[in-house]
Amino acid sequence: MSESVFPGLSLGVQELRASEIRELLKLIARPEIISFAGGIPDPAIFPLEAIGASYQRVLADPAQAKEAFQYSISEGYVPLREWIAGYLKTHGIETGIERILITSGAQQAIDFLGRALINPGDSVVVTSPSYLGAIQVFNTYQPKFLSVPMDNEGVLLDQLEAAFKQKPKFFYLTPDFCNPAGITTSLARREAILELAHQYGVAILEDSPYEELRYENQRIPSFAALEQRYLAGPDSDGRRLVVYIGSLSKVLTPALRIGWINADPSLINKLVLLKQASDLHCSTINQMVACDIAKASHAGQVQKLRKAYKERRDVMLEALERCLPKEVSFTRPDGGMFIWLEFPEGIDGAELLAEAVKDTHVAFVPGSAFYATDAKRNTARLSFSLGEPARIREGIERLAALLQNKLRSNRAA
Amino acid sequence: MSESVFPGLSLGVQELRASEIRELLKLIARPEIISFAGGIPDPAIFPLEAIGASYQRVLADPAQAKEAFQYSISEGYVPLREWIAGYLKTHGIETGIERILITSGAQQAIDFLGRALINPGDSVVVTSPSYLGAIQVFNTYQPKFLSVPMDNEGVLLDQLEAAFKQKPKFFYLTPDFCNPAGITTSLARREAILELAHQYGVAILEDSPYEELRYENQRIPSFAALEQRYLAGPDSDGRRLVVYIGSLSKVLTPALRIGWINADPSLINKLVLLKQASDLHCSTINQMVACDIAKASHAGQVQKLRKAYKERRDVMLEALERCLPKEVSFTRPDGGMFIWLEFPEGIDGAELLAEAVKDTHVAFVPGSAFYATDAKRNTARLSFSLGEPARIREGIERLAALLQNKLRSNRAA
Repeated sequence: MSESVFPGLSLGVQELRASEIRELLKLIARPEIISFAGGIPDPAIFPLEAIGASYQRVLADPAQAKEAFQYSISEGYVPLREWIAGYLKTHGIETGIERILITSGAQQAIDFLGRALINPGDSVVVTSPSYLGAIQVFNTYQPKFLSVPMDNEGVLLDQLEAAFKQKPKFFYLTPDFCNPAGITTSLARREAILELAHQYGVAILEDSPYEELRYENQRIPSFAALEQRYLAGPDSDGRRLVVYIGSLSKVLTPALRIGWINADPSLINKLVLLKQASDLHCSTINQMVACDIAKASHAGQVQKLRKAYKERRDVMLEALERCLPKEVSFTRPDGGMFIWLEFPEGIDGAELLAEAVKDTHVAFVPGSAFYATDAKRNTARLSFSLGEPARIREGIERLAALLQNKLRSNRAA
Repeated sequence: MSESVFPGLSLGVQELRASEIRELLKLIARPEIISFAGGIPDPAIFPLEAIGASYQRVLADPAQAKEAFQYSISEGYVPLREWIAGYLKTHGIETGIERILITSGAQQAIDFLGRALINPGDSVVVTSPSYLGAIQVFNTYQPKFLSVPMDNEGVLLDQLEAAFKQKPKFFYLTPDFCNPAGITTSLARREAILELAHQYGVAILEDSPYEELRYENQRIPSFAALEQRYLAGPDSDGRRLVVYIGSLSKVLTPALRIGWINADPSLINKLVLLKQASDLHCSTINQMVACDIAKASHAGQVQKLRKAYKERRDVMLEALERCLPKEVSFTRPDGGMFIWLEFPEGIDGAELLAEAVKDTHVAFVPGSAFYATDAKRNTARLSFSLGEPARIREGIERLAALLQNKLRSNRAA
C-alpha cells in the first residue's frame, strides 16, 4: 500500500500537494549554491544568551520548573499575553489578555482563522501574489479564492470592492513588506480598505510578521490601530472586524513556535476552544522563555536585525539596479526580507531556477506558487535575509548575467 | 460586539462549546478540595535534571544552538523519529522514520487524523464512553458518531460489526487503560477487532498514551504489532489500516508537546503536508530536548511512574472496595490513571459533583461528557495520578459517605 493512497482521505486533505519548489529546494542546499530562496531569519542573530539565561532561570526554581513542564491553559501563558498587550499598545493598539490567543507560530493563527471562518465554497480574498503558506492552508477548507492585484501601494481598490461585493468571509493580507512581493500598503490605501471592509462587513486578517523589520520611512499604523480610531469616532458601526496576527519568529526565534491572534473577544473565545480541541496549548516552557526573552531582548533584536538586513537589502538593490536587464522589473521594499522580480513574458521562473542552479549556482523561489489564482509564471522571489553582502552581490551578478544571456538569445531567436 | 458572535463562523467551529465541567473545575482548584478530576501527570516525577542537562548541552554548542532555534522540517527531528522507531521496535512494531510524523502532543495527532479522514456526514466509530478530547475535535469535522459500548474486555463485537457495516472512516480507541473508563481491550478482543477492521476496510486509530503505565499483568500487543503479524501471514490483504498514536506527555513531560503518528507512508506523506500547512513543524528545541531525555530517562521514568501510580491506584481501589455502597460499580484498571464509577439510575454525576465539592470538598469529573452519543449521566471518572495515598483514601471515604447518605435518602423518599 506504500505507493498508493490511504483509503478515504477527506476532500480538503486530498488537495494537499507537495510543492515542487520545496522539493527542488531540498536538492539545492549544497554549499556552492548562493541561495536567495530561504526567507528565514539569520540564526547568527538569534538572542542565544538571553535564551540560555531564561532556561536557567526557569529550571533553577523548582516550583516554576514544575509549572513549566506541566499542562497549561489553552489561552496561553498570562505574562506572555500581558507582554503582547503592552507591546501592541506601543503600536497604538489598545487591547487586553482576553483578546489575545497564543498560537504555534503565526502559521497556526492563519490555519485557525481559516478553520473558524471558511465553509466549503465560501469566498475569501487574497492579494495577488500572496503568502504561499496562507494559500495552502486556506485551500484545505475548500474556499473560492478571489485574488486582487497590487500596485506599489497595495491592492487595487476597485478590484477589491468588486471582490467584497461577492460577500467574502475575509480579506487576508500582509500590510508591511509582504511575502513574497515586498510591497507595503500605504496609509491612504489602508484607510480606504478599512472603509470598504466596514461598508461590506468583511473581516480583515492582518498578518504582520515583518512589521518591525523596517529599514526606512516611518511606520504606518496597522489596520488594528486604524480601526480603533474609527471605532472611537462618530461614524463607527461598532464592529471590530480586524484580526491581527503577530509572531515572535522573525525578531526572536522561530523555533519556540510562538505567534498570536489579537481579535474581538467573541472570536477569541471560539478560537480558544479550537486551540484546546486541536492541540491543547502551546508548549508551556516555550511560552515562559518567549516571555523572558521578549522582555529582555525584543527591542535590542529589532535594532540588530534592522542594521543587518538593511545592509543586505541595500546590497541586493544596488546589484539589481546595476546589473539586471532593463526588461526585468523589481520591487524596492522598505523592509522585510523579500524582493520580487517580474521578467518579460515567456521567461518562466521555474525553468529559470533550474538553469540558474545548474549553470550559475544561484537559487531563488519561482513566483507562480504565490498565486491563489491566475499565476504569473514570469516572476520570482528573492530573499536577502541570509548571507554576507559580498555573496549577495556575487549571486545577483551571476543571476543577472544568466538573464542577459537568456534575453539576448530570446531576441536572437 | 464583545457579547455577540463574530460574523460568519464556520459550521464546524460554531459547534465548539466551552465544557461546563472545565469551567467548574477552574473553580475547584482550592487547596482544601481533594480532587480526582485532573488526569494529568504528577509534576513531582518530571525528569527535571535530565531536562536541564539537555538544554545546557544544546546551548553549549553554538552550531547546535543555531539549529535548535531555527525553522526545521515538518516531518520532525530525525534523531527523535529514529528513537521512536527503535522504541516501537521493542514493542513489536517494525517501522522507520518515513512512517513517523512528530505532532504537538497526541492531541494534534488526533486532530490531524480527523481532518485527514472526515468529510461532513461521514460515520466514525468511538467507544462508549471515549476520550473527551477526541470527541470534541472530531466533532469540528461534523461526522456522524457511532458509539459502541464496552464490557471489561473492550467493545462488544456484535455492535462493532453493526457499526462497521455502516462504512465508517475509522474506529478510534484507547486499547490500554482507556480514558475515562480504565478498561483494557483483551488480546482476544483485539484480534477479533483487527479481523473485522480488515474485513470491512475500516482504519483503526490506536491511541496509546498510557501504554507504559501498566501496574499488573502482561503487556498486550498493540493493534499495530498484531497487524504486522497479520500482514506477514498467508491471509494478508496487504493493507496497513492501523494508525498508532504515541505521546511523551505521560512518561516524560506534557509541556514539550511531543506526540507522534506511526502509519502507512501513504497517509504519513499527506499528514506531513498537513503539518506544514497547519503550523510548519513542532518546536525544534523541544524535539531535541525530547530526544535527549527520551534516551536518558524514558525507561527509568516508566519504572518510577509505575511504582508511584500503582500505589495510588491500589489505595483508591482498596478504599472504593471498602467504603462504596454496593449499588455503585467501579472498574479495576491494570494501569493508566482512571477508575470509572457507575451509580444507580437517578444519580446524576454533575449534580453529585456540585454536592461533593460543596459538602465534602471532593472533586471528580462527571461521566456524561465522555459520550459522543447516548450519554449515561449516572457515571463519573476518578483519577488517581495526583495526590498522596492518605489523601486519596480520605477523599474516597468522604465521597463514599456522601453516596451512602444520598442512596439512603433516595430509598427513604
